[in-house]
Amino acid sequence: MFTILPIKGYFDQIDGFYCDGIHAGLKPNGNNDLGFIYSDKPCTVAAIFTENKFQAAPLKHFLQYDEDFKTNFVLINSKNANALTGRKGIADIDTLFSQLDFGSLKLVNPIMSSTGVIGNRLPIEKLVAGAKRFNLSAKSGENLSKAIMTTDAYAKSCMYEVKLENGSSFKIGAVAKGAGMINPNLATMLCFICTDAAAPYSDIMEALKINSETTFNAISVDGDTSTNDTVMVLANGNSNAYDKEAFAEVLRLVMFDMAMLMVADGEGANKVAAFEVINAATNEQAMIAAKALSNSLLVKTALFGEDPNFGRIASTIGASRIDCDDEKLVISYNDVVVFNKGEICFDANTEAQAGEVLKKDKYKIICDIGLGDGKFTAYGCDLGYEYVKINADYRS
Amino acid sequence: MFTILPIKGYFDQIDGFYCDGIHAGLKPNGNNDLGFIYSDKPCTVAAIFTENKFQAAPLKHFLQYDEDFKTNFVLINSKNANALTGRKGIADIDTLFSQLDFGSLKLVNPIMSSTGVIGNRLPIEKLVAGAKRFNLSAKSGENLSKAIMTTDAYAKSCMYEVKLENGSSFKIGAVAKGAGMINPNLATMLCFICTDAAAPYSDIMEALKINSETTFNAISVDGDTSTNDTVMVLANGNSNAYDKEAFAEVLRLVMFDMAMLMVADGEGANKVAAFEVINAATNEQAMIAAKALSNSLLVKTALFGEDPNFGRIASTIGASRIDCDDEKLVISYNDVVVFNKGEICFDANTEAQAGEVLKKDKYKIICDIGLGDGKFTAYGCDLGYEYVKINADYRS
Repeated sequence: MFTILPIKGYFDQIDGFYCDGIHAGLKPNGNNDLGFIYSDKPCTVAAIFTENKFQAAPLKHFLQYDEDFKTNFVLINSKNANALTGRKGIADIDTLFSQLDFGSLKLVNPIMSSTGVIGNRLPIEKLVAGAKRFNLSAKSGENLSKAIMTTDAYAKSCMYEVKLENGSSFKIGAVAKGAGMINPNLATMLCFICTDAAAPYSDIMEALKINSETTFNAISVDGDTSTNDTVMVLANGNSNAYDKEAFAEVLRLVMFDMAMLMVADGEGANKVAAFEVINAATNEQAMIAAKALSNSLLVKTALFGEDPNFGRIASTIGASRIDCDDEKLVISYNDVVVFNKGEICFDANTEAQAGEVLKKDKYKIICDIGLGDGKFTAYGCDLGYEYVKINADYRS
Repeated sequence: MFTILPIKGYFDQIDGFYCDGIHAGLKPNGNNDLGFIYSDKPCTVAAIFTENKFQAAPLKHFLQYDEDFKTNFVLINSKNANALTGRKGIADIDTLFSQLDFGSLKLVNPIMSSTGVIGNRLPIEKLVAGAKRFNLSAKSGENLSKAIMTTDAYAKSCMYEVKLENGSSFKIGAVAKGAGMINPNLATMLCFICTDAAAPYSDIMEALKINSETTFNAISVDGDTSTNDTVMVLANGNSNAYDKEAFAEVLRLVMFDMAMLMVADGEGANKVAAFEVINAATNEQAMIAAKALSNSLLVKTALFGEDPNFGRIASTIGASRIDCDDEKLVISYNDVVVFNKGEICFDANTEAQAGEVLKKDKYKIICDIGLGDGKFTAYGCDLGYEYVKINADYRS
């Protein structure tokens, strides 16, 4: 038995973790663009990365360390992804770290993480000058969370405390960036999770991989990820508390919270839809259809228009080529059934009810395939004018 | 040896073909919404259809005929797809045809084709009343081409004459509907091709299948098609002329013309980009990457913003998970190289040159993977505000 309590604030309140964010001159508007996480004790670190074939330089730099290495420092910048920069991009990171000196506080296996425009070399001088202004005793998760934002409309964070049966407890919290329809737009998502749980590397890695399926991968089409996507856990063990099951569960909560905040911040999105595909032939088929729905431009624009155009839902399921039969298919908006096993249930009254559902901020679109017991829920948002504006203009 | 000559006008000028379009009351704005093709001699007919699992009723109705059946009549409506209408939708087509009577002109195996909103029963009374006003001696490809439009900004047609070495000749022409980014938006595409060539069924079908790969399927992601997509060839043989090679070649031209008109009419699109992926490990890998590029929202919005953001190009190739290596990759906008085997070639001058390319209506984005000799060209368009407007509002 264990208890999970959401608590306010940032992971800076966890014993031994320090963080801050500053403006180092990368964002023209003067907002924060450089931040760090420092731990007074080297942390066990586990991370999962993008499946994009062009992994950015910071990812390659991380992967040069031994698998079970420990670190006490993560440097994070926005506005420049250090991607497609080849061997020079990796060397730039070592050059940068070689120029940092925090006196008695020595950096152990420092890590870098970057997000922003692909295909530009890192502005090392600006970053070094900025990092030299860091106070490693600072505790400002808020400043850090702002420093990692790119097209995000708001900063993203969460915090939990876990009380174990034996009376001990640990904390876990995250900051993240990533706006909305992570796919198909390939916007980078970064998520940094800090905990004082005494969690071993192998447990963290196992939980990260399992939980990613129903969290970050449920807001993304398989593998269609940016060059920099990263979810990283830093565990300093300061609480001396740990329970494998409790840790896996709270880690899932943290990852789910962050994924939902990313969907809701859909680069102009106003709605979050849960696409629940149930009774598909297999779980995998349910996943294929659910992701196709969350990824469909026609579905997204209909949600934006608050139009219960269930024909687009059905057409997208059919186009995903999973096993399906319109004589068995049932489609509902929340509890409003609009198509029932070959019968169109869409009189003016039903259409009005379904339209009311789509006026909400969050709702379910339930597709009962009627062929088996496979299920998967994917999360998506609407797509409106603001999305085009952000992505036509975003670069420098 | 043979000569292919483009000629002006519609396929109504081909001997034996008649066509027209009228307003039958489906489109609220009074535009044409019902049309027909009639042939004074039953035609050999071959068609390829959507791979969507929910084939619309008119497709199922067509497939109830024997494989090598002949027809002299195709009825086409817009505004209602007769899709997701189950067995009733197929019966509606038979009911409709049973109520049509053109006196001495008897309908032989009549075909129906529909496009529009999914999930509504056909308005049979309106369609019958409209069709009764048809004059089967009319020759107005222009009226027909307007009747099949939905979100199209303009009607689409082409015509060719083929002169064979022996002095004989035949004509071939098409009308089509389909706006722009056929995928991922699942907008229906319909294409009706009429010819007086004496082409046998098996040759037409073979040419249709082969040519679709480099034409309609090059503007679409594999299989991710609408419920109603149809490409149909009607051959009445009136010319008594035929040459297999010439026919296959001119059919490819017709299909390519129609596909390019669809891309250019991208529901608000202003640009057509040819994504040429060359020197991939295999042709299939080149196709995967080229289609990923033509389908990427981030790439499409960058084209709309006339922004030579080659990082999005590279990231999309990497996300497609084909074999690739940034030390071998070369990316060019027309002949402006912006990334060359690990080197970013993107000074202010190059950026300005690449920006000039993107101001054009049509251009190539060439991605040299540098690993083999596989190649494929996919065609896509930009995505702007107008796309969202059309698809948020489109239904009733």
